[in-house]
Amino acid sequence: MDKPYSYHPITKINRGVVEQLDDPVIAEYPFTIYFNGEEIVTLLCTPEYLEELGVGFLASEGLLRNRGQLLKTVLDEEKGLLYVEADGSHNLAKQLFLKRYITTGCGKGTSFYNGLDSALIKPVESQIQVQAEDIFALIRQLQDKSELYRSTGGVHSAALATRNELVIFREDVGRHNAVDKIFGRCFLDQLDFADKLLLTSGRISSEILLKTAKRGISVLVSRSAPTDLAISMADQLGITIIGFVRGSRMNVYTHRDKVVE
Amino acid sequence: MDKPYSYHPITKINRGVVEQLDDPVIAEYPFTIYFNGEEIVTLLCTPEYLEELGVGFLASEGLLRNRGQLLKTVLDEEKGLLYVEADGSHNLAKQLFLKRYITTGCGKGTSFYNGLDSALIKPVESQIQVQAEDIFALIRQLQDKSELYRSTGGVHSAALATRNELVIFREDVGRHNAVDKIFGRCFLDQLDFADKLLLTSGRISSEILLKTAKRGISVLVSRSAPTDLAISMADQLGITIIGFVRGSRMNVYTHRDKVVE
Repeated sequence: MDKPYSYHPITKINRGVVEQLDDPVIAEYPFTIYFNGEEIVTLLCTPEYLEELGVGFLASEGLLRNRGQLLKTVLDEEKGLLYVEADGSHNLAKQLFLKRYITTGCGKGTSFYNGLDSALIKPVESQIQVQAEDIFALIRQLQDKSELYRSTGGVHSAALATRNELVIFREDVGRHNAVDKIFGRCFLDQLDFADKLLLTSGRISSEILLKTAKRGISVLVSRSAPTDLAISMADQLGITIIGFVRGSRMNVYTHRDKVVE
Repeated sequence: MDKPYSYHPITKINRGVVEQLDDPVIAEYPFTIYFNGEEIVTLLCTPEYLEELGVGFLASEGLLRNRGQLLKTVLDEEKGLLYVEADGSHNLAKQLFLKRYITTGCGKGTSFYNGLDSALIKPVESQIQVQAEDIFALIRQLQDKSELYRSTGGVHSAALATRNELVIFREDVGRHNAVDKIFGRCFLDQLDFADKLLLTSGRISSEILLKTAKRGISVLVSRSAPTDLAISMADQLGITIIGFVRGSRMNVYTHRDKVVE
């Protein structure tokens, strides 16, 4: 597999001092996913955990529903290709996915800009409660583990966590990819989400919110900002959004009953 | 038009002190572009400069080539729709665009993962030279102007600049959108790019590099990191990438002859 980063010659200028040196640069790798023989998408990603990325992406998009369906994955690292074979008829999901990538039916007016999403996503049912101190500690763990970020400055990190510790951690040039790599691992291991939180270094957009909602995860935490569309969806779906977690500060945007001080 | 941000009730926790207040949150707005009657794409964007975003996006994708072609744009702000009518047959570009959004032909192996791009993009010819001090000053201007970022923390900023000042400045929840809004304004005004630089607060990925290369802009500047794929394309295309511009420090990744100390 390609390494997630490599050294490139750069010229560093610092207060007038000019220096030639080799500096680590994050890899950006075009990665094409085939589903039952059909080309589905090319993602630009960090080249590690590629099977997880492919499976997680297909599950996020509704093309894979359960572990039992998955027959085979074949990874061609040289060419950046993943072939996924699965049982069951998912023509509707596939057609809707292909349509969604080109066009989107409902435009504004509903919070859900994708018809499939609004049909599939149900309000999250979870009794989880977290302490503010736990959230601060988890975000510190997320930052401490972000080695690729410290080397290259070019990735986002994400983690699935219990209230006490990170369970799965991934970094990627794409915020969405980091999350899909986590969900791919969970899909392959049939991991349960009921008592879990999702952490991300990146902004909470509607797309990240929807990926989270589809897994029934009820607490979404970020060091960064949410959008108004993500907040409105989270409101409807029973998801707690916590943003701007920095040091011992945080903002709770929705369903604050899950956070105890 | 929707405002680019609105106030939402939040719970702020700061060193154990809990406070209820209204905080500004960035808008995320689904925006669908039609080209000659056909639905092309839905972007999630900040709702301002929408005509520029639509035109800039279509020009970036090769569907609009020159100002003379553009017959009409009709914006429906209520529904988040833009209708663009243009002269000239661009079936090839449209087909390749639609194909690209679903699939990508060449995968790894060439730097260009899109056949149309590799055919259309030529090495940039520019004799522009910039002082390191000018770059530091431009990035300070970019930060000073980033009001939406200061309010909401949820946007990226981008600017077209001469060596001395910002010419067009935009902010958006999407890095790509901020850049396409700039290029849309340039397309409508038939602005010349020969002596210009592009600045962005976000990472320099291959997609940002390609949008820049298509306009013949030869200097691309960021506060953040480039990817290895962007560097390799910039190398081939004669584009200078300057990254991690912070205070009086910067890294020059490619074609450093355009930077004089």
